[in-house]
Amino acid sequence: MKTVVLVMAGGKGERFYPASRNNYPKQFLCLLNDDESMIQKTVNRVLPIVDKEDVYILTNILYKDEVKKHLPFVKEENIVLEPSARNTAPAIELGIEKVKEKYEDALIVVLPSDQLIKDEANFLATLKLGIEYASNNDALITIGIKPTEPNTGYGYIKLSDSNKVSKVNKFVEKPNLEKAKEYLNEGDYVWNAGMFIFSLKNIDKAFKTYLPNQYDILSKDTSKFNDVEPISIDYGIMEKANNIYCIKGDFGWDDVGSWLSLERNNVQDKNGNTVLNKDVILLDSTNNIIKGKNNKLIATLGVNDLVVVEDDDVILIAKKDKVSNIKEIIKTLKEEKKDKYI
Amino acid sequence: MKTVVLVMAGGKGERFYPASRNNYPKQFLCLLNDDESMIQKTVNRVLPIVDKEDVYILTNILYKDEVKKHLPFVKEENIVLEPSARNTAPAIELGIEKVKEKYEDALIVVLPSDQLIKDEANFLATLKLGIEYASNNDALITIGIKPTEPNTGYGYIKLSDSNKVSKVNKFVEKPNLEKAKEYLNEGDYVWNAGMFIFSLKNIDKAFKTYLPNQYDILSKDTSKFNDVEPISIDYGIMEKANNIYCIKGDFGWDDVGSWLSLERNNVQDKNGNTVLNKDVILLDSTNNIIKGKNNKLIATLGVNDLVVVEDDDVILIAKKDKVSNIKEIIKTLKEEKKDKYI
Repeated sequence: MKTVVLVMAGGKGERFYPASRNNYPKQFLCLLNDDESMIQKTVNRVLPIVDKEDVYILTNILYKDEVKKHLPFVKEENIVLEPSARNTAPAIELGIEKVKEKYEDALIVVLPSDQLIKDEANFLATLKLGIEYASNNDALITIGIKPTEPNTGYGYIKLSDSNKVSKVNKFVEKPNLEKAKEYLNEGDYVWNAGMFIFSLKNIDKAFKTYLPNQYDILSKDTSKFNDVEPISIDYGIMEKANNIYCIKGDFGWDDVGSWLSLERNNVQDKNGNTVLNKDVILLDSTNNIIKGKNNKLIATLGVNDLVVVEDDDVILIAKKDKVSNIKEIIKTLKEEKKDKYI
Repeated sequence: MKTVVLVMAGGKGERFYPASRNNYPKQFLCLLNDDESMIQKTVNRVLPIVDKEDVYILTNILYKDEVKKHLPFVKEENIVLEPSARNTAPAIELGIEKVKEKYEDALIVVLPSDQLIKDEANFLATLKLGIEYASNNDALITIGIKPTEPNTGYGYIKLSDSNKVSKVNKFVEKPNLEKAKEYLNEGDYVWNAGMFIFSLKNIDKAFKTYLPNQYDILSKDTSKFNDVEPISIDYGIMEKANNIYCIKGDFGWDDVGSWLSLERNNVQDKNGNTVLNKDVILLDSTNNIIKGKNNKLIATLGVNDLVVVEDDDVILIAKKDKVSNIKEIIKTLKEEKKDKYI
């Protein structure tokens, strides 16, 4: 059976403002010190196990041109456009319906478009294991990430056993810190990273069973996409079906959740500064994160622990411990009717 | 006798980097929240006492086009170009030689082009007093500024008496803090602000007497300007002649010596931020100085006591107590051969 990759690229995001915008979300950003965007990295890293013509990009209609610019080798017919944001279950079914036009059955790998993976060989080995398992079993597989810290920003998955491909005990919501510490200690919890592997037939059956209204609409006419209810694949299927399995992944995964994560994923200078800009002069300045557009000098003098981001029409200067409040800037811009900067 | 104003606009400066540059020094900057540059303010404020055609701009040949842009009503023949920087004495004599082509005698007012004056009426009254005195006496007059603090950045002038027009006792170099405090307490010291008033005949005689080599060259052929020795008018004439008088000025003078002086000369928002930019969002941010080019949003989050300056090709972010080290940035740019940013 052929392997097909569905790349989920419909997400929007405020956490990388001002680099990310309404019409330019995180998946299109270059967040490492190279010229590859997150979506380019996502696709390039799976090309060893999938043919180019079997890569599908699920994205909001707003981002169509940007997707084409970043992935010129993906044929237009493989760019599946969501006319509105309806969360992951409708988006994935939209992709599945598209794949059904080409293949009677296939192994489907669903991947977010905005994550980093350090150990690509290990990542591909994990996918291969899942593909193998999904082709021989009645199984909907999710890739869980081995936790490295009591992170309260992710959903968790509790495993039932320690097999290479474990049965899932349950999905749990984002925990508080105390719970997150428990999960980390117990050892049988993994982070839900939004990566899935299943056969076309099995996921089709699951949509039919667990989301019958959505299935009824989309399996007949995908142009009725706006009529379906928004729901996540986790909530709509994964938490309900009883053929859910999980492979524990340990391949240097990072969902690059905010400007601060640039420190984890880039090399620092001798003063702890993380620099993504061509020309900088950082005097008496430590532990700053500097991201420019490469055509201006960014000079600092005596400043520490700042996030400095230059974009075409916005300059952001934030204390590192305040970047989680970036959304307040966007809120204020809305209030002050300065939407052109959003 | 006609009054002629010589505006000294040849100075360069690093203290307002990156807004000031080699080819764009402080006199061309708008440092108040309006659209008037320092040189425009300088000329506009004397127009009540001088005819437009009697305003001369002494400037480096590098700045000719910029002067024309800022002062379109000044005729090209009134822009006196220094082919190189030779300090104030040669520059002023160059201007004097130019005025001699038009007037046999005149009252000359020499003014720097990069200072702010709050009380313009009082300033003009001071100039008028000096013009009156210089037209009736053998006197070279300097305007001294009544000190408001023990500033170590200025030269001082010691007065001999408390007349409205005082005889000068001596000129003294920039003092250390202890000396500056003494001068402030003694009450007969004023700051040397580089403003002078004299008749054409008297200053011409002074050049001939105290700077004979320079006079010999420039009075014959101003195109030989590069052959004269650099020397300041203070050192070359004021400290030597015995007909030096001083008028104590008290008109809200500010030489706007660094980015920090923007706080003194602009209104702050309720959090103490000084803003010279069209659009800003300053959240949880206090006592910053923000100067942009008016076409970008500058957003800050949780930052205090910063100087943020956006220019076409440079962004500077400095802690306020470090701005006196801006020259280190320029030095580093030279070392790293990034002269295009200087």
